[in-house]
Amino acid sequence: MVDVLRPTPAPSPGAGEIFQILRDGTARTKAELAALTGLARSTVALRVDALLAADLLRPAGEAASTGGRPPARVAFNPRAGLVLAVDLGATHATVAVADLAGMILDARTRAIDIADGPEPLLDTILADAAELLATTADGLPLVGVGIGVPGPVEHSTGRPTNPPIMPGWDRFDIPAYVQRTFDVPVLVDNDVNILALGEQATSWPQVDDLIFVKVSTGIGAGIIAGGQLQRGAQGSAGDMGHVQVPAGAGSTRPPGDERDLEALASGSALAIALRAEGLDVRGASDVVDLVRAGNPTAIEATRQAGRDVGEVLATVVNLLNPSIIVLGGSIARAGEHLLAGVREVVYRRSIPLATQHLAIVQSQAGDRAAVLGAAIMVAREVLSPASVDGYVAAKAR
Amino acid sequence: MVDVLRPTPAPSPGAGEIFQILRDGTARTKAELAALTGLARSTVALRVDALLAADLLRPAGEAASTGGRPPARVAFNPRAGLVLAVDLGATHATVAVADLAGMILDARTRAIDIADGPEPLLDTILADAAELLATTADGLPLVGVGIGVPGPVEHSTGRPTNPPIMPGWDRFDIPAYVQRTFDVPVLVDNDVNILALGEQATSWPQVDDLIFVKVSTGIGAGIIAGGQLQRGAQGSAGDMGHVQVPAGAGSTRPPGDERDLEALASGSALAIALRAEGLDVRGASDVVDLVRAGNPTAIEATRQAGRDVGEVLATVVNLLNPSIIVLGGSIARAGEHLLAGVREVVYRRSIPLATQHLAIVQSQAGDRAAVLGAAIMVAREVLSPASVDGYVAAKAR
Repeated sequence: MVDVLRPTPAPSPGAGEIFQILRDGTARTKAELAALTGLARSTVALRVDALLAADLLRPAGEAASTGGRPPARVAFNPRAGLVLAVDLGATHATVAVADLAGMILDARTRAIDIADGPEPLLDTILADAAELLATTADGLPLVGVGIGVPGPVEHSTGRPTNPPIMPGWDRFDIPAYVQRTFDVPVLVDNDVNILALGEQATSWPQVDDLIFVKVSTGIGAGIIAGGQLQRGAQGSAGDMGHVQVPAGAGSTRPPGDERDLEALASGSALAIALRAEGLDVRGASDVVDLVRAGNPTAIEATRQAGRDVGEVLATVVNLLNPSIIVLGGSIARAGEHLLAGVREVVYRRSIPLATQHLAIVQSQAGDRAAVLGAAIMVAREVLSPASVDGYVAAKAR
Repeated sequence: MVDVLRPTPAPSPGAGEIFQILRDGTARTKAELAALTGLARSTVALRVDALLAADLLRPAGEAASTGGRPPARVAFNPRAGLVLAVDLGATHATVAVADLAGMILDARTRAIDIADGPEPLLDTILADAAELLATTADGLPLVGVGIGVPGPVEHSTGRPTNPPIMPGWDRFDIPAYVQRTFDVPVLVDNDVNILALGEQATSWPQVDDLIFVKVSTGIGAGIIAGGQLQRGAQGSAGDMGHVQVPAGAGSTRPPGDERDLEALASGSALAIALRAEGLDVRGASDVVDLVRAGNPTAIEATRQAGRDVGEVLATVVNLLNPSIIVLGGSIARAGEHLLAGVREVVYRRSIPLATQHLAIVQSQAGDRAAVLGAAIMVAREVLSPASVDGYVAAKAR
């Protein structure tokens, strides 16, 4: 064993790699970039100039001088282009224009019925988008579109796959339809996946293993594991709603009773249960109103829903060992009751090694989390090292 | 919207990227590599020459000529270096020498007691390794060591974390200890993770979402999702053994009874259950013998164990939507009975979209799957694009 094949860092990152260092928004000098990458100053200078010419970087003032001419700093220019972000729900659609840092510049929400089918709804949304762009674009190029839909999606093609609450959308080619109007990359995903991305980007940027659970009319999860959103082989990953839950300790259900989590703990299920108790409840939003008003029956039902969600999450914790579980959706946001039920079961049931550093928290991102996540999904794609290298090379030709 | 920032492929892959194309073992001409990468012939020629000089590629004869001098082909040289692969079980240790394609050149297995602790055991294993290398190395450099252990591991540091059946190993710095003898990269992982990698590499190379479940004395899983092995935040991902399982439909347990999967379906649990039926059974290997001999009580108990494993896997299928579930370990290999029980429950309980293309199969890789997986884990690390770029650059200096 005279010789040893030892891995050392890659010697030659391209413009795309240098650009990734600046994605955090910190302004840096060429000397700092050379130190961070190990590249020669002359190489850094060439690549920074190319990124400035492509408008992806902007001059950002001067650093403190150590004698002589003060060195110039450069920073990521999030206004190099715009993205369209669309959040399509069962009964609402939000369209937003965002910059490449995911900042929402303008947005519009309208009531819809997802069952109207893809073509009329997308026509309406694209018309909204064109109006928003007309007032916000200011000459900036549109670089991509991200769309969240309330059902499973084959992410590689952007086609919904057997979405239960989206009649008429099965296998519809959403990207091709949108590209007839906006000829840019179009990414489509399940809304819970997009919410997981938005939550991670805004509140937990250092976390690689995060589970986002949405409890509203239905129940679903977005799973980020090993830093990557997990969609699974057919795009149905994160389907928590159809996991069967036995009657656990403390449940009022008869022993041996097993039901889908969604039939136990969703807003729809809570509404049915509360109606059976004689309360005037039509849907999830009435449940939220009752909980907020302090109705003890609604509060206890929500806490039990949390315990049922916790039964499934305890298994998820043992299997995936996440750092953070984020609870979102209208039922989670109605107060701490769902959260309390989840915590009660997960901390009792999961292995100590997996819960030692586990935080279970409420979503902080609010109503715009979905369009934020969609904007981030698209910005990541168009600002990946390979995309940036290609863009810079095209500009230089 | 005059301008559109459109991603195009990265224009400039380095030697490491060209090398990845050749990792499949197919011999190719420089012209073919130029066509596959979009690089100029002259650039490909430079990088191929550097890879040949570094011994990572070898000449591989001539392609058919279309007139003129026939073009030379090059191929991956898996004998550019060797790796050591170690499979550490509770009662056995296998040490193997493999090439960079994961081919086992020689191996040695000995009985051990993992409770003897890290230093004496690693000394024994390293002595075995030195003897194996003395007869197989033939002047080739050792480039890395991969070690599988029967418990959770913090993969980034190679330290076991609270491993239940490895007294004395908690937080022990295995890489530092091994590097006193072999100063090369040392990767350590839970044995089920390594088995998942080995199974994927040998039988399912195109599959990105694979769950490997080991049912022997204990129960654990290795999870590959989105093409990546998932270790979780503290390295405890895949802990199926401590998931609590309710008494499902058809179970002979009383309603409301809940136990850890390992207490129901592991080889140890089966041994206890069969002893209670009056059979002469000490451990998992006696269970395997009885099943192989056709004992109906042992066969039914194994099938019920499969149903209990299936209860947990049904949730995994809804959450992660894998393409393949592979069952391994001694109880799985005792026949089709465990597999039949798993299939019965998973196909009944999981959502149709997730089971439509799901295969549930027995492990094919046999006794050497663990050292094979360990060899592949290390080879992937030392042959990554960044490592290869660094190695080629170092050779050229």
